[in-house]
Amino acid sequence: MKPCEEEGPGAAAGGDPWKECMEAAVQLARRAGQIIKKALTEEKHVSTKTSAADLVTETDNFVENVIISALKEKFPSHRFIGEESTAAGSKCVLTDNPTWIIDPIDGTCNFVHRFPTVAVSIGFAVNQELEFGVIYHCTEERLYTGRRGQGAFCNEKRLQVSKETDKSKALILTEIGPKRDPETLKLFLGNMESLLKAQVHGIRVIGSSTLALCHLASGAADAYYQFGLHCWDLAAATVIIREAGGIVIDTSGGPLDLMSCRVIAAGTKEMAMFLAQEIQTIHYRRDDEN
Amino acid sequence: MKPCEEEGPGAAAGGDPWKECMEAAVQLARRAGQIIKKALTEEKHVSTKTSAADLVTETDNFVENVIISALKEKFPSHRFIGEESTAAGSKCVLTDNPTWIIDPIDGTCNFVHRFPTVAVSIGFAVNQELEFGVIYHCTEERLYTGRRGQGAFCNEKRLQVSKETDKSKALILTEIGPKRDPETLKLFLGNMESLLKAQVHGIRVIGSSTLALCHLASGAADAYYQFGLHCWDLAAATVIIREAGGIVIDTSGGPLDLMSCRVIAAGTKEMAMFLAQEIQTIHYRRDDEN
Repeated sequence: MKPCEEEGPGAAAGGDPWKECMEAAVQLARRAGQIIKKALTEEKHVSTKTSAADLVTETDNFVENVIISALKEKFPSHRFIGEESTAAGSKCVLTDNPTWIIDPIDGTCNFVHRFPTVAVSIGFAVNQELEFGVIYHCTEERLYTGRRGQGAFCNEKRLQVSKETDKSKALILTEIGPKRDPETLKLFLGNMESLLKAQVHGIRVIGSSTLALCHLASGAADAYYQFGLHCWDLAAATVIIREAGGIVIDTSGGPLDLMSCRVIAAGTKEMAMFLAQEIQTIHYRRDDEN
Repeated sequence: MKPCEEEGPGAAAGGDPWKECMEAAVQLARRAGQIIKKALTEEKHVSTKTSAADLVTETDNFVENVIISALKEKFPSHRFIGEESTAAGSKCVLTDNPTWIIDPIDGTCNFVHRFPTVAVSIGFAVNQELEFGVIYHCTEERLYTGRRGQGAFCNEKRLQVSKETDKSKALILTEIGPKRDPETLKLFLGNMESLLKAQVHGIRVIGSSTLALCHLASGAADAYYQFGLHCWDLAAATVIIREAGGIVIDTSGGPLDLMSCRVIAAGTKEMAMFLAQEIQTIHYRRDDEN
């Protein structure tokens, strides 16, 4: 029996029971990243998914298939949640089973435009607890990893979040989200207005939730919030941020709910609570809603 | 007499009269980029300039001094417009003399946060016409160059703007700008709202006007607009975009005024005019105003 197939940490005497899984994730993230980087230099055939802002490409489907088929062969008892599988009708439910949570191309809109801010994200949970996260920045070839209890790294350099508590010195990241109806836009822009009026230092919108969260983990930004992202945008990054000393919570200020499609992440509790108080909720359907 | 010191193109028989100047710009942009990259890994002492969003750092001043002193030694008759010199009281006026227009660190707020989207920008104008532009992305080591009539390149790969004319497929870049009073914020967010309601594909805010304009030149974005940027943010990028086949105009739809602190850039005339019609003017003081 492979260590990775055992039920839970500590099952393998002395070792990390999920080491083999994490190694497979790193290998597949790099492989997927190479496919994506190559595709960025080629013509692409694009079909719309739910809106103009939410595109699915051939590469997106292809990459998810490459990752999931390799993992299924190696770990046949494991479960999978993937962006493209979910769009194609698969259920998006987190059980106690070892579960891979995968975004083959985070920043699909960027990818379509060849805007070079695109990542592969592979998270892994057991007993509904996130064990590790692997994120690969495809064009800059930066590998971000986080293993519960063992720290977070970017290309082997240890990551450490910002310790900023002063909102006027805060660089804040967010994303527009997929819904563009007038009510949602009003709330989205109202939240930006509140933060700018509160004299935060700056706001950035880079088009990749996953890479924005990696910037937070590396201390290059002080806080992040978003409504309308998915569990596959969040899973890997959550481990990385927590292992870099950061906080990942619900937008209400309560504990993170991975399926709730909303998040605040920050380097410090003060910064997280500032955001929780300042921003208004934008309602999105939960990932695990039928 | 060095070719670069002669008065105007064509003065040197058969050659490019500004070749030596452009080579010096490339060398200095790379050198400055290395200083900036090194500084990004060190602690920084930051002093405020005009607002929390507009910071000046020791590195900013140091880098501008490195660039201008080297150029003054090589080309003593030339004139200089630099971000830090202007902040320190130098006049910002474009005459017919050969003039270097320099932003030592574009994306100062990013730089302060170590958010890795920071560039050196060196533009050069003669008879008030932009002759070449050199931009160096400090952390990704990408060199963008454009020479009037000779094309634009990124690390020797030829640049070509997007040919998109359909607004629903447009990725648009902008920046928040330095003013944060309620009226300015209302206009800034109103412009974002108009574009999102017009169903553009996406909007990005990356914190560096110069690098946003380089993304436009490379075809990774379809349009850019901003109020409150300066001639040193624009000069180099304008040559690069035009040589990549793009358009750089005033936000009114008329010809670009380098000192007007506002710009629309786009891959196509249709996209530029869509923006000109859609966005409302935010008033900033001109760069050449006393």
